[in-house]
Amino acid sequence: MTAAPQERPQIAQCGAIALGTPKLETSLHFFRDILGMEEVERVGDTVYLRGYQEMKHHSLVLFASDTAIVDSHSFRVRRPQDVELFYEEFSAQGVEVAELPAGHQAGRGTALRFVVPYSGHAFELYYDIDAPAAPPEISSRLLSNSSRRRGLGVRRLDHFNIQASPEYVGDAERWLRDALGFKRREYVYVPDNDMLIASWTSVTSQVHDLAIAMSLTGQNSQMHHVAFNLENHSDLIVAADTLRDLDVKFHCGPGKHGIGQAMYLYVEEPGSGHRIELYSGNYHIFDPDWEALGWTPMNPDGMTWFGQELDVTQDGSMASATDAVSSVTSLIGQQAVAGQA
Amino acid sequence: MTAAPQERPQIAQCGAIALGTPKLETSLHFFRDILGMEEVERVGDTVYLRGYQEMKHHSLVLFASDTAIVDSHSFRVRRPQDVELFYEEFSAQGVEVAELPAGHQAGRGTALRFVVPYSGHAFELYYDIDAPAAPPEISSRLLSNSSRRRGLGVRRLDHFNIQASPEYVGDAERWLRDALGFKRREYVYVPDNDMLIASWTSVTSQVHDLAIAMSLTGQNSQMHHVAFNLENHSDLIVAADTLRDLDVKFHCGPGKHGIGQAMYLYVEEPGSGHRIELYSGNYHIFDPDWEALGWTPMNPDGMTWFGQELDVTQDGSMASATDAVSSVTSLIGQQAVAGQA
Amino acid sequence: MTAAPQERPQIAQCGAIALGTPKLETSLHFFRDILGMEEVERVGDTVYLRGYQEMKHHSLVLFASDTAIVDSHSFRVRRPQDVELFYEEFSAQGVEVAELPAGHQAGRGTALRFVVPYSGHAFELYYDIDAPAAPPEISSRLLSNSSRRRGLGVRRLDHFNIQASPEYVGDAERWLRDALGFKRREYVYVPDNDMLIASWTSVTSQVHDLAIAMSLTGQNSQMHHVAFNLENHSDLIVAADTLRDLDVKFHCGPGKHGIGQAMYLYVEEPGSGHRIELYSGNYHIFDPDWEALGWTPMNPDGMTWFGQELDVTQDGSMASATDAVSSVTSLIGQQAVAGQA
Amino acid sequence: MTAAPQERPQIAQCGAIALGTPKLETSLHFFRDILGMEEVERVGDTVYLRGYQEMKHHSLVLFASDTAIVDSHSFRVRRPQDVELFYEEFSAQGVEVAELPAGHQAGRGTALRFVVPYSGHAFELYYDIDAPAAPPEISSRLLSNSSRRRGLGVRRLDHFNIQASPEYVGDAERWLRDALGFKRREYVYVPDNDMLIASWTSVTSQVHDLAIAMSLTGQNSQMHHVAFNLENHSDLIVAADTLRDLDVKFHCGPGKHGIGQAMYLYVEEPGSGHRIELYSGNYHIFDPDWEALGWTPMNPDGMTWFGQELDVTQDGSMASATDAVSSVTSLIGQQAVAGQA
Repeated sequence: MTAAPQERPQIAQCGAIALGTPKLETSLHFFRDILGMEEVERVGDTVYLRGYQEMKHHSLVLFASDTAIVDSHSFRVRRPQDVELFYEEFSAQGVEVAELPAGHQAGRGTALRFVVPYSGHAFELYYDIDAPAAPPEISSRLLSNSSRRRGLGVRRLDHFNIQASPEYVGDAERWLRDALGFKRREYVYVPDNDMLIASWTSVTSQVHDLAIAMSLTGQNSQMHHVAFNLENHSDLIVAADTLRDLDVKFHCGPGKHGIGQAMYLYVEEPGSGHRIELYSGNYHIFDPDWEALGWTPMNPDGMTWFGQELDVTQDGSMASATDAVSSVTSLIGQQAVAGQA
Repeated sequence: MTAAPQERPQIAQCGAIALGTPKLETSLHFFRDILGMEEVERVGDTVYLRGYQEMKHHSLVLFASDTAIVDSHSFRVRRPQDVELFYEEFSAQGVEVAELPAGHQAGRGTALRFVVPYSGHAFELYYDIDAPAAPPEISSRLLSNSSRRRGLGVRRLDHFNIQASPEYVGDAERWLRDALGFKRREYVYVPDNDMLIASWTSVTSQVHDLAIAMSLTGQNSQMHHVAFNLENHSDLIVAADTLRDLDVKFHCGPGKHGIGQAMYLYVEEPGSGHRIELYSGNYHIFDPDWEALGWTPMNPDGMTWFGQELDVTQDGSMASATDAVSSVTSLIGQQAVAGQA
Repeated sequence: MTAAPQERPQIAQCGAIALGTPKLETSLHFFRDILGMEEVERVGDTVYLRGYQEMKHHSLVLFASDTAIVDSHSFRVRRPQDVELFYEEFSAQGVEVAELPAGHQAGRGTALRFVVPYSGHAFELYYDIDAPAAPPEISSRLLSNSSRRRGLGVRRLDHFNIQASPEYVGDAERWLRDALGFKRREYVYVPDNDMLIASWTSVTSQVHDLAIAMSLTGQNSQMHHVAFNLENHSDLIVAADTLRDLDVKFHCGPGKHGIGQAMYLYVEEPGSGHRIELYSGNYHIFDPDWEALGWTPMNPDGMTWFGQELDVTQDGSMASATDAVSSVTSLIGQQAVAGQA
Repeated sequence: MTAAPQERPQIAQCGAIALGTPKLETSLHFFRDILGMEEVERVGDTVYLRGYQEMKHHSLVLFASDTAIVDSHSFRVRRPQDVELFYEEFSAQGVEVAELPAGHQAGRGTALRFVVPYSGHAFELYYDIDAPAAPPEISSRLLSNSSRRRGLGVRRLDHFNIQASPEYVGDAERWLRDALGFKRREYVYVPDNDMLIASWTSVTSQVHDLAIAMSLTGQNSQMHHVAFNLENHSDLIVAADTLRDLDVKFHCGPGKHGIGQAMYLYVEEPGSGHRIELYSGNYHIFDPDWEALGWTPMNPDGMTWFGQELDVTQDGSMASATDAVSSVTSLIGQQAVAGQA
C-alpha cells in the first residue's frame, strides 16, 4: 500500500503586518495608547503589538525606518508541516523563496519569505508562534481575551488590502487563489473585457482576509491599507469622534461598504503616514458553495454603501512601497535590517 | 496504485431548525413580521423562513403541531458526497439512520436523519438546497443580502443549544466531536471529577454552532434554545425595547455571556413557548491550534458577564421535547407527518 | 396698588411643520411606514402625524399641493395667554398678524400667523392642542410614549432650519431673538465684518430649536431642512442602511456636526423633495449663563466634525419656497387652501 | 408707580455632589482615569472634577473622610439674585439656612446651605462659579467641550436620587416642589391611600434632576445614588464591559427604566462604596403643560423596563448618610471640615 497523498498546504489566517515608520514613538503611541493595542515585546527599535482578543505574540510589528515602508504581510498556515510544503510548491513553480530563522520576528518560529508574482508584495508564512500572557495590570478576567479592552478597542488584525498596477492585478489575484488558496468572495470588474478592478478574497469565513485592487496611478507593490477590527458600529463612531479631536487626518469615512457590509474609517497613522482602516461588522460566509459576487463600476454601492467616499484615484503612496523586495537580496527582509541586525 | 483514501465527511454549518407550534399564525407573525424574517414558501401548514443575509431556501421551518416540539436540528455538509459518507460512517457505528427524500423539507435535496446517541436529539444532514431570489418588493440592492433588512433585523440562524441529562452530557458531547467533527471551544466543568456541565462547539469560526448543556431537572432530549443573529449590540437593545412593548415574555437578558463574548436576549416565542435567543457579537476563532477554554461553576463570569442571569435550573421544557424521536419509527420525522404528509 | 406687569410671552417649543407635497401617498408612506410616525388624523388631502414620544395631536402636517411648499413652521407658546400677548406685541411693532381659528390645523386651538420680518418665513403660534390616545394596536405600555416605537424610530420633531439671503440673515436672526425670545447658542460668522453666516438658537435646552443660515444662492424664504429626532447614534446608522436599500436619495451624511455635537443624515423625501434630517444626540444647555459659541468659516469642524460634508452652496430649493406668504393675503395660509377649504 | 414684584427665585440645574471617601486616591482613579472626568483642581485632600461637556469648575467634589458620607447635593440658581431671594424665602419659612463664603467649594461664589425639611439632606445653592479652560493636553477642538472625551465618556453630572423614610417621603417631595420649584414628572404611588413611593422631579427638560424615593429599611437622609451621563446606549454597554473586567461591583444593570426611558448601570464606587449610576438616553419634556405620569407598584415596567432589576429593599447605606447635617452646627458642612479647614 502506498502512502496517503499529502493534503495541499493551506493558509489559516492573517498573521501580522510589519510597518516601518520614521517616527517610531509617535506610531507606537497611536497603536498602543490611542487604539488600545498591547505592547508585547520590544527589541531595539522594533516593537511587537497585538489586540486584546489576540492570544498569539503579535499581529503588528513597528520598526524604525527612514521612510514609511511595509516590510511584509505575513500569514499563519494551518499545520506545522505546511511551511515546508509551501516551500516545496513555490520552488517547483520557480518562485524564489527564502527561509527566515526562528526569531526573525520575535516570538515566531521558522518562516518563509517570498515575493508575490506580478504584484511584487513581500509575504511571509509561518506556523509556530508564542502565546504569552499579558502582564497582570492589563490582564482580562475573560479567558478568551489576552488583555482587557482599552483605548478605542482594537481587538484584532482584520485584513490586508494591497494594490497592483492595472496590467498585473488579474494575474496576481489568480496566483493568490491558485497558489495560496484564497477564495474569491466579491469582486469589481469591467464586464466588456472582464478586466478585474478589485477582488476580496479569504481563507476564513471573513469576506476578505486579503483584498487586491488596481492602482489607478499605475504603481505596483503598494499597500492600500491594513485593517484592524472593532466590535460594533458604535465603537467606530466613538473612534471617529476621538480621532478627530486628536486631529488625526481622515482619508475617508466613517461609512459602510456594500462589499462586505462592514463600516469603515480610514485614517493616516500620525507617525508614518501609513493608511490604517478601523473596521467593524462584516457578514460571515459559512456556505460551502459560496459563489463570488460580481460588481461593476456602474454600481457604486459596492465601494460606498453610505458615508464619505474613498478617493479611488489616490494610491497608498504614503502607505508604503516595497519596491526593494522584488529583488532576491530583499528576501532577507527590510525589517531585519532596520530593526534587528 | 491504490485509490486516494477518502477524506472524512464534514459538517459545514447549521442549516435549519424545524419547530412545531400550536399557534402557527402567531409564531409566523413573530418570526416574519416582528423579527423580520422572509417567508420563502408555504406548503400546507408548514412555513419556510430565512434571514435577510441567508441565500439558501430556509433556516427555520414552522409547522402546525398540537404541542411545541422540535422536529429536527439540521446541518449542511461540506461536499455533496458527505451525505453518503456520513451514512456509511453511522451505519458502521451501528447508529440507525434514515434517508429522507428530496423535498422532505421544501427546497432541500436528499437528507439523513438520525438520533444523537446519549442525548436523543433528532439531527438531519444535507447538502443540496435551493437558493431562491426574494420577491422584488423586499429585495436588496446589496448582492450579499437575499432581502432587505426589516423588522428587528434577524440576519441569519446563529446556533443551537441542546440539553441532555447529567449522566449523558459527557458521552453525547464526545460523540458530537468524534462522529460529527465539532470542535470544543469553551466549556464548563467540575474539576474534582472532571464532570462536563456544558460545552460550546463549532465547525466554523464561531465559538459555537452547537452547544450542549446539562439539564438540571434531569430531562434528556431537550432544546434549550435556538439563536438568531443580529448585527450589533445596539440592535439587541432595540429588540429588547420593542419586544417588551409587545409584551413578549423575557426569559433572560439582555446581557453578555463571558463565554463567546456575545450579547444575548432570551424570549419566549408567543405562539409556541419555544425559547428563542437573539444574539450578537461573538468573537471568531481563526487560530488553527485553538485550545478549548475551561470554566468552572466557581467562576460565574462565563455564563453571565453582565446583565440578567439565566436561571440554569429551568429546563427548556416549553422549548420542546423530542422524546418520540428516540424510537426507530420516529426517524421518518414529525414534521413530515405534521406538515407535508 | 397697580397690577403686576405682565410677564412677556414666551415660546415653549417647536410645534409642527406643514409640508405641501405633490405625491401625498408617497410622502405619507415615507413618514408613517418607513420613519415610523403615527397617522393621527386625516382630513381630506391633509394628514396629521406625530412621533412615538409626542403626546400632542401632531408635529407634521402633510397636504396635497402642486409643488413642494412649506405652509408654515409653527411653535407652541408657554401659557394660554401668550397667544394674545404675542398678538399685541406684533401689532405694536407693525408686524402684520392674522388670527387663525381653532381647527385651522386639526386638533389645534386658535393660532397666530405672521411672516418673519427680513426672512419671509410664515410662522404660527398656538397653545391649545389635543392630546389623543393612539389606537390600541400601536399603543405603548410606557406611559411616556403615545405609541410604540416602530419603523426607523422617529420619536419627535427636533428642529427647523431656515434660510435667508445674505443681506437679511443678520437682521432676521436679531428679530427672532428680540421678538420671539430665541437664544443664540452657537453661530458662524466672518470676523472681519462680523457678518453672520448662520445661527443656532433655542428656547429649550436644545442647542437649536430653530437655526437660520445664509442662502448662498441669495434666495430668501427657504426651508433648509426640518429635523426629526432618533434615540441613539446607532439608530441613525440603521436608518442610513435601510434608506439606502430603499433607494432614498441622500443629500449628506451620516456624519456628526461639531455645532451641537449631534449625528445627522439628510435625505430627500421621496414624495416631495423636501430635505429631511434624521438627527440624534445633541448636548443640552442647562447653564443659565451660557454664552453663544462663535465659529468662523476658517474652522470647518463646526459644520462637519466627521462624515460626508454638506454642500453649503446647495439651497433648499426642492425643500420649498414660501414666496407667497410675504403678502398679506397669504396670512390665511396655503395649507388651508390646499388641505381644508 | 410701584416697583415690579420680584419674580420668585428658581433653580437652574444640578450643580455638584460632594462625596467623602475613605480611599481618596482609589476614588479619584475611578472617576478620573476610568470614567474619564477631568481633575480640575486639588486643595489638600479635596479634589474637584467635571465631565468633558461641563464648562464650569466642577460637578463632583471628592474629599478624604473616615466614612463614606455625602456632604451636600448642590444646585445652581437661575440668576445672581436668586441666592439672596432663596435665603429670604427659607428664613421666612423658618428653615434654618447658613451662608457659605465664596471658595467654600473651590471656584464657587457665595452659597446657601440648608437641610431639606422631612428628608434631612444637606443642599447647597449658588450662582457664581468659575469656568476654567482645560490644560492643552486634554483640550478639545469642539467649542462646546471643556476637554476631549476620554475613558468611559462621562460627559456631565445627570441627576441625584435621594431617600427618605416612608413617613416623610410625601412631605419632603411636596416641600421640594413648593419651596424649590421642582416639577413632578413621573411618580410611583399606592392608589388606595395615595401613598407616594417615589417621585422624579426636574427644573430642566430632563425627566429628573432630583428623584426622591421611599427607603424600605426606614432610614432617612440617604443618598440612593448620583448619576453621570453618557452619550449613547452603546457607551453604557462598553462601560459595563470595561467595569466588569476591572472587577468593579455591580449593584444593578445594565437595563432600561420605563420611567424616564433611560438605560442605567449602577455600580459601587471602589474607593468609598457610594452607589454611582451611569445613565444614558432619557426623553426630554418640552411640553409646557406636562402632567405627571403615575405608576403603581402593580406595574413593574416603570422601575425595570428590561434588564437586571434593582433590589428595592436595599438602601443606599454604603452610599452615605448625612445624619449629622440635621443639626444646626452641621450647616457649616462636613466637607469644609474634611477638606478645607
